[in-house]
Amino acid sequence: MSDTQLTGPLQRLMDELKKLPGVGARSAERIAFHLLKANRDDALALARSVTAVKDEIRPCSRCYNIADQELCHICRDGRRDQGQIIVVEQPKDLLSLEATGLVAGVYHVLMGHIAPLDGVEPSDLTIDALVKRVKSGEVREVVLATNPTVEGDATALHITSLLADMNVPVTRLARGIAPGSQIEFANRSMLEEAFRGRRGV
Amino acid sequence: MSDTQLTGPLQRLMDELKKLPGVGARSAERIAFHLLKANRDDALALARSVTAVKDEIRPCSRCYNIADQELCHICRDGRRDQGQIIVVEQPKDLLSLEATGLVAGVYHVLMGHIAPLDGVEPSDLTIDALVKRVKSGEVREVVLATNPTVEGDATALHITSLLADMNVPVTRLARGIAPGSQIEFANRSMLEEAFRGRRGV
Repeated sequence: MSDTQLTGPLQRLMDELKKLPGVGARSAERIAFHLLKANRDDALALARSVTAVKDEIRPCSRCYNIADQELCHICRDGRRDQGQIIVVEQPKDLLSLEATGLVAGVYHVLMGHIAPLDGVEPSDLTIDALVKRVKSGEVREVVLATNPTVEGDATALHITSLLADMNVPVTRLARGIAPGSQIEFANRSMLEEAFRGRRGV
Repeated sequence: MSDTQLTGPLQRLMDELKKLPGVGARSAERIAFHLLKANRDDALALARSVTAVKDEIRPCSRCYNIADQELCHICRDGRRDQGQIIVVEQPKDLLSLEATGLVAGVYHVLMGHIAPLDGVEPSDLTIDALVKRVKSGEVREVVLATNPTVEGDATALHITSLLADMNVPVTRLARGIAPGSQIEFANRSMLEEAFRGRRGV
């Protein structure tokens, strides 16, 4: 086998890695060398976990929650109030809020938060799809449940400005959650207070 | 399927990504969401390129060049001068030097360069293995062919200090290569000049 054929797989791996957000040419090279040197099982565990994410789950076509069919089980549930959309950063936040049993509405998962320093722009999130849902006219309330962090607040502010002209009340979770903490780690009573105490923006 | 079962694959992917060099919890989350949203073929291309690197190639157990068996084709070649070791940062640099036809010796591939700001320490490279090879006693000359950059020079300096007591001449490529450029892109005549003009350190 020629030298060039042998470097082929390494080069293709670097090219694929460079397509990932936040991974430049230097990181791609470093990760590729790491995987070349790594234990075979460890490297293949990564490949398998990527495949599993594409094979076993997919984003709900309406709310971007993790789903195993076109719509997630919450969007499919006829008893949920389609007029109330709870906007969260990630699926884990949705799980924490669901566990309170207080949410009658449905969700919208942003898939992250705006973070210009990390290169995450509004267009990298599912904000456009949220705006479309609200424009559709069925929505009576948008509850912003982003994390009480700098990035979460910036994301909430950005969404608020986009929804300002739409005549739909926008609320956000009450500050029962300690600023700087993460929703996924908040206890039930803190989340209940926060949900019950939500206020107009 | 329960919610927790659905988030499982995403969480496992984040855990695997966090093991990669330079990828923290935030980047892992961001890359995982990117792959969840990504086109299925694009995501699977990444998984396949990781698998291909482990299935089709491996590092040579002596010099860390890319190989398809225990030793690379250069280390297996009885006509090569095992007493002269050319130290390069990556397999692509080796290919460029081989293309000149001037190298009678063998190589040692460092798999990168020292870059403390990017978290790459000497122990992340194959420097220990190089020192062992030199200690083995067969070596008459070590030619440092790292890139003429800040990181390449720092790496060369570090290796020079490690080899200082071993009574083996250490040379480095002549500065025919324009500082700041990359060996893989240098033309043949520049590389020839650089190899012919190598000097004691």
